Amino acid sequence: MTTLVPSPVRIIGTGLIGGSLGMALSSSGAAVQVEDISPGTRSLAVELGVGSLPSPEDPDPQLVLVAAPPDVAAQVIDRALRAWPQAVVADVASVKTTVLEGVRALARGEDLPRYIGAHPMAGREVSGVIAARGDLFQGRPFVIVPHQGSRAEAVTALKAVATEIGSVPVTMDAAAHDTAVAQVSHVPQVMSSLLASTLLAPTETALGLSGQGLRDTTRIADSDPRLWVEILGANAASVAGVLGEVRDRLDGVIGALESLRGSPDPSIGSRRALASLVADGNRGVRRIPGKHGGRTDAFATLTVLVPDRPGELARLLTEIGQIGVNLEDLRLEHELGRAVGLAHVAVDATREELLTRSLGERGWTVAEA
Amino acid sequence: MTTLVPSPVRIIGTGLIGGSLGMALSSSGAAVQVEDISPGTRSLAVELGVGSLPSPEDPDPQLVLVAAPPDVAAQVIDRALRAWPQAVVADVASVKTTVLEGVRALARGEDLPRYIGAHPMAGREVSGVIAARGDLFQGRPFVIVPHQGSRAEAVTALKAVATEIGSVPVTMDAAAHDTAVAQVSHVPQVMSSLLASTLLAPTETALGLSGQGLRDTTRIADSDPRLWVEILGANAASVAGVLGEVRDRLDGVIGALESLRGSPDPSIGSRRALASLVADGNRGVRRIPGKHGGRTDAFATLTVLVPDRPGELARLLTEIGQIGVNLEDLRLEHELGRAVGLAHVAVDATREELLTRSLGERGWTVAEA
Repeated sequence: MTTLVPSPVRIIGTGLIGGSLGMALSSSGAAVQVEDISPGTRSLAVELGVGSLPSPEDPDPQLVLVAAPPDVAAQVIDRALRAWPQAVVADVASVKTTVLEGVRALARGEDLPRYIGAHPMAGREVSGVIAARGDLFQGRPFVIVPHQGSRAEAVTALKAVATEIGSVPVTMDAAAHDTAVAQVSHVPQVMSSLLASTLLAPTETALGLSGQGLRDTTRIADSDPRLWVEILGANAASVAGVLGEVRDRLDGVIGALESLRGSPDPSIGSRRALASLVADGNRGVRRIPGKHGGRTDAFATLTVLVPDRPGELARLLTEIGQIGVNLEDLRLEHELGRAVGLAHVAVDATREELLTRSLGERGWTVAEA
Repeated sequence: MTTLVPSPVRIIGTGLIGGSLGMALSSSGAAVQVEDISPGTRSLAVELGVGSLPSPEDPDPQLVLVAAPPDVAAQVIDRALRAWPQAVVADVASVKTTVLEGVRALARGEDLPRYIGAHPMAGREVSGVIAARGDLFQGRPFVIVPHQGSRAEAVTALKAVATEIGSVPVTMDAAAHDTAVAQVSHVPQVMSSLLASTLLAPTETALGLSGQGLRDTTRIADSDPRLWVEILGANAASVAGVLGEVRDRLDGVIGALESLRGSPDPSIGSRRALASLVADGNRGVRRIPGKHGGRTDAFATLTVLVPDRPGELARLLTEIGQIGVNLEDLRLEHELGRAVGLAHVAVDATREELLTRSLGERGWTVAEA
């Protein structure tokens, strides 16, 4: 197999991101060497197909991808620049300015042109190499962050990586990158964590009233605290800037609610503050490109009622197979205290009608999703 | 068809909730009369199968469901209590204390026992009768909110409604209800709107980096501003209370970020504030029932490698049944371009060891989630 990527590639740090990069690059035909400070993680990474352990006979890496936490990234990059004087060295940390500053402080001037930043924009609320997947970066942006002294060949090497792993390369400078990820990733994480942390107070009865809205808004709150302390700390200025605006608006909302509280003649301004919050939210959410991207037109979701008895779900899946329709995704929803669950079955949109009809003929109750 | 619900049922206000109630009750065999101040909405409701227009020959309604916005609900309820002196009259507004206070202020004392509050916990980020669905309440909680003077027959009538529309009846008093929905519904709405309203600032390039996390956290921000002004205004005290706690915590987060900003030796306290925010969020999100069932303490999630061949998933589920373990939740994960999928299987935590061992003996590869 030939790959566009300079090979061998050394991946330092085989967690979720490093592991997924290794899987994707190995599939593309690159010789991937894995390195991790934890021997257990390293072995698991090899077993899962991330790459191989480097041996003394291996040629030197031509490309080094540092997938270490932001607080240690600069040191690891400097070490790699010194160890392999021919290699392009890139880090994939989720913040770029502090890493670049760290590298500038540590690295020798002649090594700097071989350093370049990168940020494959993908993640999961789970972490570790066991969560790694070769398709993690498919169709996602891959931000390439050159600095003023970066060599053209470093940019080319990263464009090759982006292409081979199925990502879309986007070039930004470190400051623009950090502002952007504060807005679309770090602030959403803080807001989701803030919301989820209010859920320590409600009674279990109250929590029993939860719906999909609460589940969606808090899903990413199940993220790794250690990782996020590093990310937020490394992008503190940008994140604090946006959060300051959130606080001002929140103050206004609380003020409006307090003036409405029990008042028979609430001020018009109070109602307007609430309406404009929700209306601005409408406008904001509609700016997200590919919104409802997860629910692409290519798939249709059917909701099938599944009796809550052993074997019923297996029977449903078996029958979907017999009907000849491929299952693209499956989500189960339990109905507390009822003898029925909901299986949300995603299939190719062109197969929806066939499946709905065939399941109906077999006695399943199918609701439109 | 016989229905448990006192019939005819008059539905006043045929938006998303009233329309969906009418569809579900009509399906159950109840005679549903529809009423709406908008003639267009009323006709559309009839056409969509919500019910029929009342005619002078119709018997009086035995049950009236008021699905009007919270700010007008009390007046409509009072009018209904006076118009049909035999009927149980319930409203389905999403806040209950202000409605109850309004009814107490307007209604005659002898009519009050026939009034009862209700809140079918379902909604969509779309509104209007066109979005109504007969299965909207399937498996969702239906909160019945009696007051001290409510007649037993009013409670019975609403339990019948809950049963017929496929919901799970839950009884709470108005104060407990309003606190609960502030926590699990109204505050999440405000937080999602706050977050989405920050998206007016980013450049399009920045928004191009958006991922599923941002989509999920802002999905409900696409809600109707007019409706939410009424809901938030009617539950102002409870919502402001929780938001006040959010503000305090947000202040702490901003303070921590500012002290970390560019500081080479950030205070330990600052890092701890960020870590405890994310960790509390972890704990909060895991309290949501049914939320990725696998992450509550009661459930354990196993990850099983499933060969990407027809029938393998059905075989896995069949074998789990044979082992005698109940599946609490199942989530599938596909790896494009790899010959294996991951099935995340949630089971009662006390059965985890048995299942892991038994599946291993049967040749499945099980990884810890």
